[in-house]
Amino acid sequence: MIDRTPIALLSDFGCQDGYVGVMKGIIAGIAPHAQTIDISHQIPPQSIIAGRFCLMSVYPYFPRGTVYLAVVDPGVGGQRRGVAVRCREGYLVGPDNGLFSGIYSLSPPIFAVSLTNADYWRLPVPSSTFHGRDIFAPVAAYLANGVPLEVLGDAIDPLSLVHFPLDPPIIADDRLLGSIQYIDTFGNLITNIPASVVTGKNWSIELAGTIIPHRFTYSDGDWGEIIPLIGSHGWIEIAIFGGNAQARLQLDWGDRITVITASRQNVTDRDP
Amino acid sequence: MIDRTPIALLSDFGCQDGYVGVMKGIIAGIAPHAQTIDISHQIPPQSIIAGRFCLMSVYPYFPRGTVYLAVVDPGVGGQRRGVAVRCREGYLVGPDNGLFSGIYSLSPPIFAVSLTNADYWRLPVPSSTFHGRDIFAPVAAYLANGVPLEVLGDAIDPLSLVHFPLDPPIIADDRLLGSIQYIDTFGNLITNIPASVVTGKNWSIELAGTIIPHRFTYSDGDWGEIIPLIGSHGWIEIAIFGGNAQARLQLDWGDRITVITASRQNVTDRDP
Amino acid sequence: MIDRTPIALLSDFGCQDGYVGVMKGIIAGIAPHAQTIDISHQIPPQSIIAGRFCLMSVYPYFPRGTVYLAVVDPGVGGQRRGVAVRCREGYLVGPDNGLFSGIYSLSPPIFAVSLTNADYWRLPVPSSTFHGRDIFAPVAAYLANGVPLEVLGDAIDPLSLVHFPLDPPIIADDRLLGSIQYIDTFGNLITNIPASVVTGKNWSIELAGTIIPHRFTYSDGDWGEIIPLIGSHGWIEIAIFGGNAQARLQLDWGDRITVITASRQNVTDRDP
Repeated sequence: MIDRTPIALLSDFGCQDGYVGVMKGIIAGIAPHAQTIDISHQIPPQSIIAGRFCLMSVYPYFPRGTVYLAVVDPGVGGQRRGVAVRCREGYLVGPDNGLFSGIYSLSPPIFAVSLTNADYWRLPVPSSTFHGRDIFAPVAAYLANGVPLEVLGDAIDPLSLVHFPLDPPIIADDRLLGSIQYIDTFGNLITNIPASVVTGKNWSIELAGTIIPHRFTYSDGDWGEIIPLIGSHGWIEIAIFGGNAQARLQLDWGDRITVITASRQNVTDRDP
Repeated sequence: MIDRTPIALLSDFGCQDGYVGVMKGIIAGIAPHAQTIDISHQIPPQSIIAGRFCLMSVYPYFPRGTVYLAVVDPGVGGQRRGVAVRCREGYLVGPDNGLFSGIYSLSPPIFAVSLTNADYWRLPVPSSTFHGRDIFAPVAAYLANGVPLEVLGDAIDPLSLVHFPLDPPIIADDRLLGSIQYIDTFGNLITNIPASVVTGKNWSIELAGTIIPHRFTYSDGDWGEIIPLIGSHGWIEIAIFGGNAQARLQLDWGDRITVITASRQNVTDRDP
Repeated sequence: MIDRTPIALLSDFGCQDGYVGVMKGIIAGIAPHAQTIDISHQIPPQSIIAGRFCLMSVYPYFPRGTVYLAVVDPGVGGQRRGVAVRCREGYLVGPDNGLFSGIYSLSPPIFAVSLTNADYWRLPVPSSTFHGRDIFAPVAAYLANGVPLEVLGDAIDPLSLVHFPLDPPIIADDRLLGSIQYIDTFGNLITNIPASVVTGKNWSIELAGTIIPHRFTYSDGDWGEIIPLIGSHGWIEIAIFGGNAQARLQLDWGDRITVITASRQNVTDRDP
């Protein structure tokens, strides 16, 4: 463990009510030398799917040994387990509800425990509604201090962790039928079609019957133009240079996107 | 003082304009080893009452020695005093306008000074509109560095500090007539009725003539159901599983809430 | 370099998507002892002019040696240069698009490089849309570690850096014709008329034919009154005590503001 182990926080708590601050207060008491880093606290309320994408997209950029403390937890106090998980590059702490499954797709869980050892919770007893404060924050802080995962609770089968696999795009000849898996603050539409499937190819999107060829960056188009490109997350993305694609195109989470790659068939079509 | 003394910040500055950042810049110059922790900067503008609740609710969770720097300050530059206060667990720095009075109800002020010693302000002279930057932030940083409270200004009677006592619920037989003292980001309605008055009892809320029995956690109900419960702050709270109680029930800050506890009278009613 | 060199961050990324968190993750890996401080991430999307004001207004308050990492970057991936700049008090890292020109007006750039040395970028190759993560964050972290500016790329003429000079007010006898250069979260209207031009004078604003004399602080007026004053940024500002001046006065960025200073002519008018 390095001296200033990062604890990366993600939640849907917003920043208004002190729910995030109180978790950091707990951490400061247990692990004063850890550094807390906010990934986001504005995940749409109870949207496990948005939190999952956000965690997956930042995971490759944090240092080895980072503890990820993530709480999007509609089932708090109910049947869902609280877990701590070791992956190759770091530790995950939070509810076992699929929130971490984007990370699992990058880095399979190696070892996991159900958080059953109350010695590492905030005393006297946890509330039934805020495990982020009472269980997950202290556990993350102890992990940052070097407490071994094994003492935090009962070992569980990593394969039993809740895993939402990514909805894959459908590939039909030169057409890729994908969908929008995330929309960011700028209104950029991030699809579930990975960059790798179009690497080295010419590709376009088809939008309401119009074919729009890909670009390399936002400013490759004119101001206000629709820009299909490989986004920084590594997925095919649709943006508007200087504008908001979600608002302009009236598209939403889950809507279908068709990508066309230049292929033999297209050439044949034009050359009968 | 520990090496990385936390300075916990609360304000109504929002996060857009750099007002919070500039206070942290001042702190970084004076106390580079302190760690600043944001409680909230999205207190509704000039709402001392919301800031007071938020400070009170996080206070028990921060480590001993924390310096609380809080600025919700509609009277800045006017007659209100700037103060630094020692409580048993930490230090409070900000305007003397009632903002800290929730904390006083948990931990009475032991010693207080009016911030009159300009040696600990930012030079040359403070602005008349931003004491957060020019007086409170440097004072908090010096406290984190171990400067004694006594040198920061003239001692004042702790009993003279502005104190808004909590509006208490009215208890009438088996009915508790309380009100909503805070509404969080999720739309959860937090009343002024403490958990202690219903401990070990069956209790319900009465809402528009309907009796709704309490639950233990959000997910004890069905999706969309009204859930009265003991919230994580330690007060009776009304939530909607997976939804927003404020929007659904059209209730607002200060609205009355009636809690009914199971009692002899109820049993008598049913057993004539 | 001090041990905990501050890296002050400003962007228009918002706090929802993890774009800021991922930059901090990169920094934590390269410079674990640096302390990141958020100035603002809620600069209006692509508003270089707002980011420029915000940077200028916080710059005098941060400690010497601070690294400013600022990304409002509509031209990312296009022709604009990425730069690192040394000023007397600190380092600036970001796009060369005018974002730093408010700081230049306070502290002229001394030495600058175009960020061409990929050894200090995140490997393997930067995305074409997120240089904040792939180039600027690692460069800022290396600077905080003490890496000399000179190795980060090719030296460029500091005079070639993009500089938006401040639109100056027009001075006509006892009238100052200025404009609104920034509107903050509270709706306070910050003009481009510096405090220095009215120091020691009586002054008023003229608003829709009404003369409103200046005050010293918000609370010098009655609740709801229009308050012209010297704001904390050092510019003439128009506020409403307990209210929102932008909403009430229906004024916007760039709108003209007239300031009248007491002068011989006024006295003559009253004494014919």
